[in-house]
Amino acid sequence: MSKLTAGIIIIGDEILSGRTQDINSNFIAQELIKAGIKLNEIRVIQDNIDIIKNTVLEFHKAYTYVFTTGGIGPTHDDLTSESIAKAFNVKYCIHPEAFRVLKEYYPKGEFNKSRQKMAMLPEKAELIYNPLTVAPGFKIKNVHVLPGVPDIMKKMFKSILMKLQKGKPKKICTIETNLYESTIASPLSKIQNNYVDCFIGSYPYFDYIKKTSGVNIVVSSWERESLKEIINEIINMISLLGGKSSIV
Amino acid sequence: MSKLTAGIIIIGDEILSGRTQDINSNFIAQELIKAGIKLNEIRVIQDNIDIIKNTVLEFHKAYTYVFTTGGIGPTHDDLTSESIAKAFNVKYCIHPEAFRVLKEYYPKGEFNKSRQKMAMLPEKAELIYNPLTVAPGFKIKNVHVLPGVPDIMKKMFKSILMKLQKGKPKKICTIETNLYESTIASPLSKIQNNYVDCFIGSYPYFDYIKKTSGVNIVVSSWERESLKEIINEIINMISLLGGKSSIV
Repeated sequence: MSKLTAGIIIIGDEILSGRTQDINSNFIAQELIKAGIKLNEIRVIQDNIDIIKNTVLEFHKAYTYVFTTGGIGPTHDDLTSESIAKAFNVKYCIHPEAFRVLKEYYPKGEFNKSRQKMAMLPEKAELIYNPLTVAPGFKIKNVHVLPGVPDIMKKMFKSILMKLQKGKPKKICTIETNLYESTIASPLSKIQNNYVDCFIGSYPYFDYIKKTSGVNIVVSSWERESLKEIINEIINMISLLGGKSSIV
Repeated sequence: MSKLTAGIIIIGDEILSGRTQDINSNFIAQELIKAGIKLNEIRVIQDNIDIIKNTVLEFHKAYTYVFTTGGIGPTHDDLTSESIAKAFNVKYCIHPEAFRVLKEYYPKGEFNKSRQKMAMLPEKAELIYNPLTVAPGFKIKNVHVLPGVPDIMKKMFKSILMKLQKGKPKKICTIETNLYESTIASPLSKIQNNYVDCFIGSYPYFDYIKKTSGVNIVVSSWERESLKEIINEIINMISLLGGKSSIV
């Protein structure tokens, strides 16, 4: 098991209203697993100071790394920075470096009060630079605060990922079979019991148009050097049951 | 504010590993807002009995309605039903009606032990019928337990939605403008302060290929009969700032 853990907090009423499909957590999840960091939880929460504050504190204590997305823009509904300052009981004030970077970016006379709000951060937060629109994210303790716009978030995440401690990446292999999940369930469970350092996930799919169905069996392990042995057992089990299998 | 609230629990390691993009919560979110039910939180959690149990209990106490997806299939990694039985301190056992429906569905001799597992539910749970693959979901207290496969989940959700108490649907209108978020932030905040029964969300977008950018301003209210007045104020404000606006 990876000792490095993570939690993601997606901040935004637009996700909870169904207006926006969150795609940020899926991107971060994929990056974390490659970096050997185990993502334990994702939470989508409202734009509300108390909720943001309490969730950030809970995650800060529970996980090695915390990532938030959303709520760091210039408008009245952007409450993340202020909430996180409250969570860690530090001042919410103009960050000199963020102020300087933003002031340089905007044409003379256009660095208005709203834009200055994007330089309001928890005191002494470490900046996360934004190569696209300059408005920075920030890091305070183990909490990394990123914007909600996916293109910007991704670039900034890549830059912080370089600085994180990495674990051994989780080994993963997917085997597809045309058998029903209920046909393989019992032998698969026996194989699982013989490999306590592996996880076997079983994910059925149904294609109602092509009238096909099957199961993706996902084998993964944080500890094993190789998944060969368990994969061969699963392939043989499928074959004995008269099914087809392929590694995807 | 809608007095009816909801929380969604997405159960599945496949979401946390980044293998699968969750689309179930976005579908449920859209349906709930139309039904006048306020979605307060979405949590994605691991396939782990204690975590499922504790999260379900927390949501059960916090929200009018709880919806879970995932983890009710026939394999060893399907732990939702057992965990929910534990949460409510009831027996986890063969549900006679679920057993009957499943037995009827499968050809003689094919209703094996793994398939029978799908009839193992918290005692006296109310079944949620599954028109596609028969394996039922269930309801216990205010918790609605649905499968993870989106096509099946959607059909079953539609059937339970009919039985839920409805609130007044949230009124929503989106205004798009070509102005920067930081240009409108200050006047938008003033309008927000004048309409305490409305929420104004501000969501910037950037299209790096078309080199366009702008903001979607989402105005919503649980209480107001009409959003006309606030929309007109926003449109006028944009116009005064020299911007374009359109209702989308």
